[in-house]
Amino acid sequence: MRQASTFNLKQYLQDRAQEVDQALEVYLAPDVNSLGPIVEAMRYSVFPGGKRFRPVLALAACEALGCERSRAMAVACAFELIHCFSLVHDDLPCMDNDDERRGRPTNHKVYGEDVALLAGDGLSLWAFEVAMLSPDDLSASTLRALVRELVAASGHPGMVGGQVIDLAAQKTGQIDGPQLKKIHAAKTGALIRGAVRCGAIVAGASPEQLRQLTIYGEKIGLVFQITDDILDHLEDPEAVSYPALYGLDESRKMATEAVQEALTNLESFGPGAEPLRALATYLLTRTT
Amino acid sequence: MRQASTFNLKQYLQDRAQEVDQALEVYLAPDVNSLGPIVEAMRYSVFPGGKRFRPVLALAACEALGCERSRAMAVACAFELIHCFSLVHDDLPCMDNDDERRGRPTNHKVYGEDVALLAGDGLSLWAFEVAMLSPDDLSASTLRALVRELVAASGHPGMVGGQVIDLAAQKTGQIDGPQLKKIHAAKTGALIRGAVRCGAIVAGASPEQLRQLTIYGEKIGLVFQITDDILDHLEDPEAVSYPALYGLDESRKMATEAVQEALTNLESFGPGAEPLRALATYLLTRTT
Repeated sequence: MRQASTFNLKQYLQDRAQEVDQALEVYLAPDVNSLGPIVEAMRYSVFPGGKRFRPVLALAACEALGCERSRAMAVACAFELIHCFSLVHDDLPCMDNDDERRGRPTNHKVYGEDVALLAGDGLSLWAFEVAMLSPDDLSASTLRALVRELVAASGHPGMVGGQVIDLAAQKTGQIDGPQLKKIHAAKTGALIRGAVRCGAIVAGASPEQLRQLTIYGEKIGLVFQITDDILDHLEDPEAVSYPALYGLDESRKMATEAVQEALTNLESFGPGAEPLRALATYLLTRTT
Repeated sequence: MRQASTFNLKQYLQDRAQEVDQALEVYLAPDVNSLGPIVEAMRYSVFPGGKRFRPVLALAACEALGCERSRAMAVACAFELIHCFSLVHDDLPCMDNDDERRGRPTNHKVYGEDVALLAGDGLSLWAFEVAMLSPDDLSASTLRALVRELVAASGHPGMVGGQVIDLAAQKTGQIDGPQLKKIHAAKTGALIRGAVRCGAIVAGASPEQLRQLTIYGEKIGLVFQITDDILDHLEDPEAVSYPALYGLDESRKMATEAVQEALTNLESFGPGAEPLRALATYLLTRTT
């Protein structure tokens, strides 16, 4: 195992999240004119933000390749908008029917189900406009790649498809380990993987670099989910989860191994990859 | 007024709709593997199709500039997927709560509200993947333009935003003529306008050609809405509509004038614009 880094991850995460917040304020500014109502409902579920985990990953992947992270800001924010859209739709009565999120009433509790549905739609569509604010010097094939990554991560091949498989699995009530892994890889993993990949793509990653960062993204997506499950398991031991299926010890071991694989795939990267390394290790020990 | 054309519009519309259907069959093929359930739900609301009005407009706009219409097929189908997504979400219980569409149970009646919501999301996102199947020789700036047109037409600056304004207006119950026009311009007009523009953009329209085709698109969008309202008015005279606000005669006059303006803006175009011309005239007299 590599030695503990002196890198200050906490400060890095705070600073990057703040940069993302500032960019989102520009990309999704309040509209005081005709479109006021829907923009207000869209902004309600974007601000104030959480950890901005997905966009920060995109910025860190860009930096890992020795590139100015600002180049990845637009596509990073596109991933955050997709994430926010998914939360709005997830909370709707026909889905998880949640009344609260991050200590506030959910979007539909404030604006009504109809407006919340449309605000979610608006956020998902606006993500593509924001992605198009990526640097002017990107080639046509890079732009195509960014759009495709966004769709693959968020659409039916990724997040949205994973949710449908999850719904089907919950109805049958029978989920085994491989199936749980598959559901999570699509439902939450695809956005994390896609954010890392897009950060790398705008930085001009070589195919080999992209391959390694993709594995990194997949592995930390898995760690993210396992540690999430471990945290939730203490509250709800009955829920289908890694600890429920594999036990707490084995789940922790799986997470540790995944972090190791993530780090192995960063070995050829220089000091610019320190944030990505620190992030992977941090995910193992996070408590919130 | 120009002389009646001998152009066979009915045949043209049939042939183009068939081409669109064939392309959509490829762009959204059945997935018999892991993503089966959501793809089935997505396809349910795409096939069998209706008139494929928006994609046919994109193809016709491309042809009006003397360009092979196949160049516009991908972006044309992207607009159809956006249209289908909007129908799925519109039919949901929290919106119009419709049980039937085109003589069949609506998506959520067949697959449940949760899957229908996600299938709609999947269709809207997949539209961007399909748009990226546009010809390889498009420049980066043209690709950016296509994505932005799609977002502007479908997102909060267009369709989705128009729906929220409509909901708000319906709640107050007070809608005047200018407001009705504004709602429709966003809610239904933006997609029609956007489809025409994208067909023109892939054909390499000059700024002046794009300007004229944009007016054409706006005008036929208006005609489409007025004639829709006239058809509905006979069944529901109480609903807020052009005939309810302006009377039947004045509404018909407004539609006729809009068609005239649409045709005026096609005067500098050659015989390739015959389908667009015939379409504008046809909209005035349609009965379904």
